[in-house]
Amino acid sequence: MQFDPPSGTRDFLAAELERRENAFAIIREVFARYGFEPLQTPAFEHLEVLTGKYGDDGDKLIFKILRRGEHAVSGEADLALRYDLTVPLARVAAAYGSQLPSPYKRYAIGPVWRADRPGKGRYREFVQCDLDTLGSASRMADAEAVCAQYDVLTELGVADFQFLLNSRQVLSGLLEAFSVPTELGHGVLTTLDKLDKLVPARVIAELGARGLDESRSVGLVDTLTAGDSVARVRTALKASDSGTAGLDEIDEVISLVTAHLPCERIGFTPRLVRGLSYYTGPIWEVVAPGMPGSIASGGRYDGLISQLGGPDVPATGGSVGIERILPLLPREMSGSRGRLDVAVPVMGEDLAPHSFVLAAATRRAGLRAAVYLGSSGKLSKQLRWASDQGARYCLIYGRSEHARGQVTVRDMISGEQTEVYADQIGDYLMRLSTG
Amino acid sequence: MQFDPPSGTRDFLAAELERRENAFAIIREVFARYGFEPLQTPAFEHLEVLTGKYGDDGDKLIFKILRRGEHAVSGEADLALRYDLTVPLARVAAAYGSQLPSPYKRYAIGPVWRADRPGKGRYREFVQCDLDTLGSASRMADAEAVCAQYDVLTELGVADFQFLLNSRQVLSGLLEAFSVPTELGHGVLTTLDKLDKLVPARVIAELGARGLDESRSVGLVDTLTAGDSVARVRTALKASDSGTAGLDEIDEVISLVTAHLPCERIGFTPRLVRGLSYYTGPIWEVVAPGMPGSIASGGRYDGLISQLGGPDVPATGGSVGIERILPLLPREMSGSRGRLDVAVPVMGEDLAPHSFVLAAATRRAGLRAAVYLGSSGKLSKQLRWASDQGARYCLIYGRSEHARGQVTVRDMISGEQTEVYADQIGDYLMRLSTG
Repeated sequence: MQFDPPSGTRDFLAAELERRENAFAIIREVFARYGFEPLQTPAFEHLEVLTGKYGDDGDKLIFKILRRGEHAVSGEADLALRYDLTVPLARVAAAYGSQLPSPYKRYAIGPVWRADRPGKGRYREFVQCDLDTLGSASRMADAEAVCAQYDVLTELGVADFQFLLNSRQVLSGLLEAFSVPTELGHGVLTTLDKLDKLVPARVIAELGARGLDESRSVGLVDTLTAGDSVARVRTALKASDSGTAGLDEIDEVISLVTAHLPCERIGFTPRLVRGLSYYTGPIWEVVAPGMPGSIASGGRYDGLISQLGGPDVPATGGSVGIERILPLLPREMSGSRGRLDVAVPVMGEDLAPHSFVLAAATRRAGLRAAVYLGSSGKLSKQLRWASDQGARYCLIYGRSEHARGQVTVRDMISGEQTEVYADQIGDYLMRLSTG
Repeated sequence: MQFDPPSGTRDFLAAELERRENAFAIIREVFARYGFEPLQTPAFEHLEVLTGKYGDDGDKLIFKILRRGEHAVSGEADLALRYDLTVPLARVAAAYGSQLPSPYKRYAIGPVWRADRPGKGRYREFVQCDLDTLGSASRMADAEAVCAQYDVLTELGVADFQFLLNSRQVLSGLLEAFSVPTELGHGVLTTLDKLDKLVPARVIAELGARGLDESRSVGLVDTLTAGDSVARVRTALKASDSGTAGLDEIDEVISLVTAHLPCERIGFTPRLVRGLSYYTGPIWEVVAPGMPGSIASGGRYDGLISQLGGPDVPATGGSVGIERILPLLPREMSGSRGRLDVAVPVMGEDLAPHSFVLAAATRRAGLRAAVYLGSSGKLSKQLRWASDQGARYCLIYGRSEHARGQVTVRDMISGEQTEVYADQIGDYLMRLSTG
């Protein structure tokens, strides 16, 4: 369609946009309550800032911007739309260093662009909601990110959800405990990540195909899928330093966050891997019944900021999958208030200035008001417009009102009409506004 | 500098970003009060939607996006960053037609991108604040746009400003009254537009160079620069239909808007031309002492939406030059509230969980709170951090407090300290929050 927005992007008309903005306002408020401060960076970055950060697969998804002026004919790009909010954060951390508070707790809510194949719920322009703490190795920083995400989901009205918590150190410990050869480690974790989608036999087969011998594959998969997997993992990790540190990390984060959220909302989940390889400590995902995949996630990524070009600082944080959550929120969230509080019909060309003045007086009383701007002189048609705009009241000033020096105030719900003297309409509206 | 944002773009750290967001919130509230509804369109459009809309000069300023995948090597572009908010409005009007209210009163506040040479106050990524009414020929629609801009400027705290009002029909009438040949009309207006920058003699010379004979040039310039230019223009336009209609339009808009704003804030300004050729009715600009150029502007542009690919509807509206205004606003606008209400130091690793719990309790009381995430064990250093974060209070829980079962609440302004029993801290914080 000629007039559609580009594939994978969306136009947001008023109702949907207000719904989104309401959600973003809630998120901003929660993040601020935790002492995170906002950051906004440009839509595009120098191309070299973005490329090579997430491998070839990442690079393929970058929208590149053609050079301009005499260089346009070269067909080369020098800028690119940002792909996520983490690379710009790394650049900002490098650029502003000591001007930033330490630790630097920042949130960012803004669009990112990926040249992915568009599909159901998958867009090329979509909003990310990130919060991150740079410069703190404290487990309280991890716990804070979990608590803030918990508050966001709760205050958005997500009915039921659970945090799955694991630690990269637990996973390393497991590889160690099952003597998985170092060079197979990454691939083994990638396969184990499929345990929530594939039956155990398929996962074992895939581990075999990666070169892991059968007894280890079976041992690993059994340990992670058993009913008492947490206990089994704790036992298996006893001999591993990394594993012990991981368990300690898990226990501390759970102990901290359950000061704030009910303990049944978070659980140690040894088989949680998370795809991205840059995590170094606690990792988590939030799942909710009826929602595919995770609706929020995060983890500690101590080496990433320097890999992305920033300073060498410990870092932790996460992202709320707001585009996944928004379509599933209760409809009421959009707010039941109509576009207008008061609509002002126009009962004749010579009376129009009076209607214009009434609308101005209504706004001064703090109400949303609009005068009828169409060409119909019929009251019935104008009342339909008022009703379409969600107006609670109409102020009607026709010839008979003009003769009597009155304004008819029509309640658009009950249909009741009240006559108010024109010189008292300001006070009357003020009472409507505060009442 | 390697870590700078791309030329002509900006990173917004917390203080500046909050200042901007506060201003945008005020603007949204004013526009909503007038019954305008928000619209948000994607950052990029199909290239052919954007090109050719504002001539070759406009096209040169477009940031083009390279095709992706196998087409990337072609060096061709298929998408482009939006250049303004009006072309996307025209596309939306075409795409959603009858789904939109009629008239469609929309506002849009969002970034646009222009590959202009960056300079002082001139950016490649900047925010536009537009409000427009499509589908109404009523002069009330023009007057509403003026009133809404007036409210925005007033509520933003712009101290002193004035609306300069003219009409394209007045200008056509003047060309007619001075028998300017039709083919010279556009060029003559372009030159007359310079009367606020050049001395009259220079303007007369430039009119001569455009082919207008001297007596007409002198007559036009004298009429527009005389102390009684309004009276002279009114006299000169008596014989012109277009001129008479223009004066009528001016008088009606002034009469309507002065129901809302003081009459000295708007004046008929016959020499106002406005560069863009698409205006068809009333046009206006807002000037303020000490601010170069105009800080807001608008006009009626009945043919433009269809020229831009939309439906053939009358249209009027304007734009607030928010990027020009923002640097000039009083500093207080940024809000004097610090990042944090309450900072919670950590007085020892074993006491950290207690501090974490105190921060959680503080947030539940509706206050902004953060626990210290750094590695220093010194209270003096942690108090400096609290102070840098703008915290109003500190909650200190050290060994002696732990022994007594109390929390020390330190007022960061007076330095006064109060001991509160740990089990009463929730109530205490609630009183701080509501008091």
